[in-house]
Amino acid sequence: MHQPTAAMLVIGDEILSGRTRDANAHYLAGQLAGAGIRLTEIRVVPDDAPVIVDAVRELAARVDHLFTSGGIGPTHDDITADCIAEAMGASIGVRDDARAILEAYYRPGELNEARLRMARIPEGAMLIDNPLSQAPGFTLGNVHVMAGVPSVFRVMLDGLLPRLEGGPVTLSHAFRVMLPEGELAAPLRQLAETHPQVSIGCYPFFRLGPGATLILRSADPVRLAAAAAEARAMLAERVAPEEIEETPPVNNPE
Amino acid sequence: MHQPTAAMLVIGDEILSGRTRDANAHYLAGQLAGAGIRLTEIRVVPDDAPVIVDAVRELAARVDHLFTSGGIGPTHDDITADCIAEAMGASIGVRDDARAILEAYYRPGELNEARLRMARIPEGAMLIDNPLSQAPGFTLGNVHVMAGVPSVFRVMLDGLLPRLEGGPVTLSHAFRVMLPEGELAAPLRQLAETHPQVSIGCYPFFRLGPGATLILRSADPVRLAAAAAEARAMLAERVAPEEIEETPPVNNPE
Repeated sequence: MHQPTAAMLVIGDEILSGRTRDANAHYLAGQLAGAGIRLTEIRVVPDDAPVIVDAVRELAARVDHLFTSGGIGPTHDDITADCIAEAMGASIGVRDDARAILEAYYRPGELNEARLRMARIPEGAMLIDNPLSQAPGFTLGNVHVMAGVPSVFRVMLDGLLPRLEGGPVTLSHAFRVMLPEGELAAPLRQLAETHPQVSIGCYPFFRLGPGATLILRSADPVRLAAAAAEARAMLAERVAPEEIEETPPVNNPE
Repeated sequence: MHQPTAAMLVIGDEILSGRTRDANAHYLAGQLAGAGIRLTEIRVVPDDAPVIVDAVRELAARVDHLFTSGGIGPTHDDITADCIAEAMGASIGVRDDARAILEAYYRPGELNEARLRMARIPEGAMLIDNPLSQAPGFTLGNVHVMAGVPSVFRVMLDGLLPRLEGGPVTLSHAFRVMLPEGELAAPLRQLAETHPQVSIGCYPFFRLGPGATLILRSADPVRLAAAAAEARAMLAERVAPEEIEETPPVNNPE
């Protein structure tokens, strides 16, 4: 029942300056949840080599898989590959397999010095396919280095993820009611105490009035169903059954 | 010319599980940029007390301002206020000023034990107004604790930010051209070397063909204008002037 753990390192000044809203962390979070890999941290750092190197060392040591996005293009601000190599103690240079991919993609004469930087891959790394714009990502140790452009990040992750060992998938069971969370807090606390293996979250919203979404989560379908039954009964004491919007697990393996 | 620094700590299982896409970090990033405060890190952590306490200690020690979002509601999974108190070595309990705000908002009998949790404020903290749903945030030392619901986060930040001392605003000058970044990389590297005080980023996009957005950033309008003039000339050697989409700084104080 071990769930592998993961962290995400988003690299890029443009996120921290507010110019760009990161989309990759959210996409990764959803994909990892479906694969039974538990995402424990997302961190966004600037294009600053010492900061990137420190973050890679710290996070790679703490989780089973570290995913990075950004900074692997041809321009001077693309420093991720070199930082990963430094953090992991690997040498780095233009590698023949990566160069061959770029040579096949560009027209003769187009593969200039800057573009060749995209073939700089640390020694010992395994390439990650990029069917969209060819320049590959790579996996070095437990660090998976991918592009920042969302469409490229997605195709890279979609190719990579099936190769990683997942754990039991966390299932979620949701209830949505038009009740303020302040009235649900006491019974929910009791529910959480009775079912310590089920994670119970309550998320308020305001739409014509105060409402709340309860999310029960567990990798164990039996325990989840037991907690959900109690939650349903608790809500039915407060609103009519037809006013409870219920979403049972979609990936239930049973 | 000192720019204060900041970090953002997003607290919530729902972001890491992929259920919710965080909106607060991006909003904060844009607001801080406009206020001349430099955001140096965004971190997302789960609803896990020791992890939150460690992150608060580490980040609060490193930046001028730490902003947090999430975990200050009435339910059992809302543990942020207690974690902040622990991290900063402050005691915590229901405070009269916060209780008075809630008493004025709820109808008689509605202010139950769970809702009173929202009046738990660390000793020595200053309340942050919440004109939307009343339950306040707070500032303790250099940590600003706000709600996770985006509409509430925004009104809290909008009230708080004018009270914080900003630095010189970083101005940005953008160019957008339909040229692949691989052809711009060499001249951009040279531009970056000639103008070390101007940060130069290159962001590729694909729309009917490969294009790139160059972003030049600096708090110094004179240096920025000099670098922008060189960038414009460099681009004009490659495409017709009418094919260069240029966005000069909007907040230029000159």
